[in-house]
Amino acid sequence: MPSTDLLKLSATEIASKISGGELTSVRLIEALLSRIEEREKTVKAWAYIDPNIILEQARKSDQSGSLGLLHGVPIGIKDIIDTCDMPTQMGSPIYIDHQPLIDASCVALTRSAGALIMGKTVTTEFAGSFPGLTTNPHNHERTPGGSSSGSAAAVADYMIPVAFGTQTGSSILRPSSYCGIIGYKPTFGRFNIFGIKPAAQSLDTLGLHVRSMEDIQLFTSVLINRNFKPLESPSYFPKIGICRTELWDFALPETKLALENAATNLEESGAKVSDVKTPSSFKGLEEARILINCYERSRHMVYEWTEHRASLSMPFQEVINAGLNMSNDDYTAAMKQTEKCLNESNNMFQDLDLIIAPCVDGEAQLGLDFSGNPRFSGLWTAIRLPTLNLPTHLGPNGLPVSIQLVGQYRGDDKFLSIAKWVLQKLGSPSLKIS
Amino acid sequence: MPSTDLLKLSATEIASKISGGELTSVRLIEALLSRIEEREKTVKAWAYIDPNIILEQARKSDQSGSLGLLHGVPIGIKDIIDTCDMPTQMGSPIYIDHQPLIDASCVALTRSAGALIMGKTVTTEFAGSFPGLTTNPHNHERTPGGSSSGSAAAVADYMIPVAFGTQTGSSILRPSSYCGIIGYKPTFGRFNIFGIKPAAQSLDTLGLHVRSMEDIQLFTSVLINRNFKPLESPSYFPKIGICRTELWDFALPETKLALENAATNLEESGAKVSDVKTPSSFKGLEEARILINCYERSRHMVYEWTEHRASLSMPFQEVINAGLNMSNDDYTAAMKQTEKCLNESNNMFQDLDLIIAPCVDGEAQLGLDFSGNPRFSGLWTAIRLPTLNLPTHLGPNGLPVSIQLVGQYRGDDKFLSIAKWVLQKLGSPSLKIS
Repeated sequence: MPSTDLLKLSATEIASKISGGELTSVRLIEALLSRIEEREKTVKAWAYIDPNIILEQARKSDQSGSLGLLHGVPIGIKDIIDTCDMPTQMGSPIYIDHQPLIDASCVALTRSAGALIMGKTVTTEFAGSFPGLTTNPHNHERTPGGSSSGSAAAVADYMIPVAFGTQTGSSILRPSSYCGIIGYKPTFGRFNIFGIKPAAQSLDTLGLHVRSMEDIQLFTSVLINRNFKPLESPSYFPKIGICRTELWDFALPETKLALENAATNLEESGAKVSDVKTPSSFKGLEEARILINCYERSRHMVYEWTEHRASLSMPFQEVINAGLNMSNDDYTAAMKQTEKCLNESNNMFQDLDLIIAPCVDGEAQLGLDFSGNPRFSGLWTAIRLPTLNLPTHLGPNGLPVSIQLVGQYRGDDKFLSIAKWVLQKLGSPSLKIS
Repeated sequence: MPSTDLLKLSATEIASKISGGELTSVRLIEALLSRIEEREKTVKAWAYIDPNIILEQARKSDQSGSLGLLHGVPIGIKDIIDTCDMPTQMGSPIYIDHQPLIDASCVALTRSAGALIMGKTVTTEFAGSFPGLTTNPHNHERTPGGSSSGSAAAVADYMIPVAFGTQTGSSILRPSSYCGIIGYKPTFGRFNIFGIKPAAQSLDTLGLHVRSMEDIQLFTSVLINRNFKPLESPSYFPKIGICRTELWDFALPETKLALENAATNLEESGAKVSDVKTPSSFKGLEEARILINCYERSRHMVYEWTEHRASLSMPFQEVINAGLNMSNDDYTAAMKQTEKCLNESNNMFQDLDLIIAPCVDGEAQLGLDFSGNPRFSGLWTAIRLPTLNLPTHLGPNGLPVSIQLVGQYRGDDKFLSIAKWVLQKLGSPSLKIS
């Protein structure tokens, strides 16, 4: 198998080839390192990567018996997630060279299932809006999105099959959409977040950047500790709601076209597609999410605010200052709204298996200073539902445009099964990467 | 003012006297250190305390202008909460001498409001069930309760006016009841928990051990960042429900007597008291909480489990092993139950301002190996409601017995106001401490 083909393997395929003796970890890692060597100077996806550390892991892995489902599978780790053998710098000069004592739970779980920790991927400053240096692999003058910028770019650029990201607004789905891969934000709380620097703890969700639906199933099995069963499409035609949301006017033409076209194609494929509106309680939900984000974020950052204020970016300082001055009554009201919307969202799923909705405003914008608006994913993050972006369309500049899939609260297994069906029906346009 | 009287001051009184120039921090701290010197060898409330560090804080505080609401007020910190200037040992040999890089949010917030960080109070192993060395200040052969053992004992023993605790089951209310002080567990999420080692993140709540209701109001103001207004009793006679719960048969006679007597006295004081039953969805709720606790705890401890298993106590190893083998489906079902009960609890408060319920089985047991059963508080922790214990009664051995107060979800301000009224009416028996 030529090295370039190794780059395209999914994590599931890697696990299978390594356990079947067709591939060694060292060979795979050498191919990935060579890809990174070639591309990193323009993509800038990595905050920390040490070929010696990862090759040493690969050699040990090849010499040991299988440790578990992820034996020999490399993963990239967003750089707000603690690793015991690599620094966690959080996109901030305050944490330059900061070496955590222990692994975050998600790292420890994947490591003990045999995964190789490839390195740390670039995050915006503390997973906020101030960007890192990463560029969009499809066009280096455009943003990769954020905050999980390096995770999405590295997976899209074939530097790594899978990476951890976190989402507090749209930090997994937006960069995944801009970079043309799949991003999965599970139901809030499904994956353990201990050892991850919080942005806003009522919203923070650990998720995955992948190029294959199967890899979501594989990593889910490890993270919630169950046996692996391949993802199966449903044996019935799913009932799908198309929800334009009250933010529809913010969607650019390519996003509107993608969603309408997806609805038409899914109906032609046998799905029962109907319009669905968000309940009236959703009015102002994105503003509520922004308030919660700001209020909680400021309290997570009190130490840095007190001791290292000058090392925070000006936009970040403004967020913290605003958050510290918000009233607890307003915060409580916002939390109550999200809880009400979550409860009412269950009604939306009484006659629906899945909702499709806009994912991002449109294609990745020009420029690296602004990583894009989180509103279309933010709505669903606020109410804790499982979401996924599928890069099913292209925009006017030939860049990827995703639709967003939304599932019922705590219904992730059914959600992923139907998402697989949707992707089978819609397909994904091929993207040329140099 | 004689030194012994200084020991009895509440945090609110200390703040007032220091800002009024009647008291210096150094004088107060010297009195507290002398008390600790005298009593610590039997109470064993402190995991770490360095008189030089705290006296240096006091001297600086006396020399500076007021920093905020807590200027000069000392606080004890449960030893699973990170402090940048003292170790955080978590009741485990794995973390002996572990020095965190930064303060937990609650520490940073109180420190920047002028509080003095007195030291770290003993916790059970990772806030689980395996006890530390702390004894009950009222009887050294009896448990102080756990997991916030040192926090409750130090406040009860007049070593400190207030201490942080955390509750995942009954870890604030139980030791507070056993030691005869007030424990407050707010609505889940009200106080920021970043920088606290998680036990189970869907349940973990930061709260307070105090000897005065006013101190809850004072520290709440700092932790949620609002101006301080003294706590006011309601201007009406509250409607109070007495909820014996389905666990009533586990209550020892002293707990049953305390609750029935409290109901009678409150009715005689003008409250409208009525019986209230938990909805049928509460059946098995404590088992659901135990499952959630075990499932999540095991995932928070993956690193220690993998790398330092032999340094975990055997009971703790059993909990982690059990948790790692629990199915995600069972966990999801348990979480759904707690969410349903939380929603239905709002109905209980449609005609009630407050619920009183059993707090613990009874008096603190003999022996230091078992810190007591969490069930009576666990029920309400599982569904995230604000709770408080008031040490209103004595048991057959003259040891404190509390009633538990339960408030509506996110209704903490009203809850505390009515709790103040309840304590005014019921009073608190005086306890002799040597």
